Amino acid sequence: MSKLLAVGTVAFDAIETPFGKTDKILGGSGSYIGLSASQFGVKTGIVSVVGGDFPQSYLEMMNSKGINTEGVEIDKNGKTFFWSGKYHNDMNSRDTLITELNVLETFTPVVPDSFKDAGIVMLGNLHPLTQASVLDQMSKKPKLVVLDTMNFWMDIALDDLYAVLKRVDVITINDEEARQLSGEYSLVNAAKKIHTMGPKYVVIKKGEHGALLFNDGKMFFAPALPLAEVFDPTGAGDTFAGGFCGYLAKTEDVSFENMKNAIIYGSNLASFCVEKFGTERMQELTAKEVKTRLQAFKDLTQFDIKIS
Amino acid sequence: MSKLLAVGTVAFDAIETPFGKTDKILGGSGSYIGLSASQFGVKTGIVSVVGGDFPQSYLEMMNSKGINTEGVEIDKNGKTFFWSGKYHNDMNSRDTLITELNVLETFTPVVPDSFKDAGIVMLGNLHPLTQASVLDQMSKKPKLVVLDTMNFWMDIALDDLYAVLKRVDVITINDEEARQLSGEYSLVNAAKKIHTMGPKYVVIKKGEHGALLFNDGKMFFAPALPLAEVFDPTGAGDTFAGGFCGYLAKTEDVSFENMKNAIIYGSNLASFCVEKFGTERMQELTAKEVKTRLQAFKDLTQFDIKIS
Repeated sequence: MSKLLAVGTVAFDAIETPFGKTDKILGGSGSYIGLSASQFGVKTGIVSVVGGDFPQSYLEMMNSKGINTEGVEIDKNGKTFFWSGKYHNDMNSRDTLITELNVLETFTPVVPDSFKDAGIVMLGNLHPLTQASVLDQMSKKPKLVVLDTMNFWMDIALDDLYAVLKRVDVITINDEEARQLSGEYSLVNAAKKIHTMGPKYVVIKKGEHGALLFNDGKMFFAPALPLAEVFDPTGAGDTFAGGFCGYLAKTEDVSFENMKNAIIYGSNLASFCVEKFGTERMQELTAKEVKTRLQAFKDLTQFDIKIS
Repeated sequence: MSKLLAVGTVAFDAIETPFGKTDKILGGSGSYIGLSASQFGVKTGIVSVVGGDFPQSYLEMMNSKGINTEGVEIDKNGKTFFWSGKYHNDMNSRDTLITELNVLETFTPVVPDSFKDAGIVMLGNLHPLTQASVLDQMSKKPKLVVLDTMNFWMDIALDDLYAVLKRVDVITINDEEARQLSGEYSLVNAAKKIHTMGPKYVVIKKGEHGALLFNDGKMFFAPALPLAEVFDPTGAGDTFAGGFCGYLAKTEDVSFENMKNAIIYGSNLASFCVEKFGTERMQELTAKEVKTRLQAFKDLTQFDIKIS
């Protein structure tokens, strides 16, 4: 079992969907990645920052799941990063209502000594320089570095993104962002071009349409589980990434074959995340539920045609 | 091996894509369904109508593939149905430039005697009354009736569509149309509602995002094969349906388990269709190519997680 180090946000979200709305609740990429990875019982450390307004109880909840929060700096005089958004009726598009960076504006990640030798490093969606500074602090080269990013950084910090991508094994990115980063419309061609930027493995997230894994001409696809109701899509992508990394950390096998399983687990966990508001469903999720749903993924995708 | 009877259009298409444009070439749902099903060596009969301007050579090409065109009426004084369209750069949306119904306006399908006992009937996208009249002519109840339709018929002939749906086992429909027909956004709920209209099996086509099969609470998903280049998407849905029906006709097994294989074959054949303009790729397609691509579908979807 490898240690998993994840840098990301730990934040407040206020969410409105056609099903209802929340006050400020726990959110942030780091929270979702950590909760998802915790399903695999791996030693996960989160590097992030919160303000003096952040409830200790949230950190305690994470600790109770085995998530190490030593690396979550508490800036007593600052306010926690806050995002508020409203989903449209189709749940595929949303408007951002409020983004208050607060303590994130001056965030300098500090990796705790106990995680400087982590085997798997997940660089959540932050400024590429912030992501790079986490890698700079590692005491030995991680077995696998996974990076998530978004169009925003391509717009304002493309050269920094190029620089950190050279140090990354796996990039997770959505379809539109893959097109923007590569300048290619076809996802097959986009992945090919992104390979040349550094990442040997390219994971393209297509939301309700599943996720594709590319490596050196090979492809694998994990569907999203069709659900009767998607309650709140917030955090699904980070939950996917957390499941992916958590499974790889647990199995210590970063081959393409094992990454297939990892994206199935990522998709599995993401399918739970969207069933309730925020991190609620992930907090109560049991191993038994994950196992049962794994069977649903098998039923959904496995077929038996003999190729004579 | 069952006989397959397909009613659909045999037409002229003029297509423009970012890769080029064509003059009037062979098109129509019946042509695509027939060419796709011909890969399985099943006895396929097409019921359709063309005008005096339709080249005999097209019919001969179909006959050479084992497609029976006895049921393709030639209206010497009429002109063949003509559709012209232009695809946008993303290849997912298109504008219809010209639709000339011509001989289709007065089309009354006549099922040849030799196909009145067909085991599988594919009702291509036509007026629901035209689809129903084909069923009326069958000498015995088919093993399986498959129907394709579109939003246009929901808008102008919904009651006729409801009536024919009661006589149908499988409906193939795209995601937006499934939502329109059911009034449900979630495809899981849409399928559930469409079941109550008649079809025990609901196939929801999502274009580049694959296809879902629903039956009595069970689900199966076939991805579309990610391609470096989609040259012309025209006919992909009909090719999918032709592959689905052709495989079921060949294997004579209309169980849910075998339908999984059938939609994989449908997706397989559709992935070839889009590689060239119109029916060109389907005309030259070999069994060996289909087999090789079947392995690509296995590689894309099959994983090995033991559920302990």
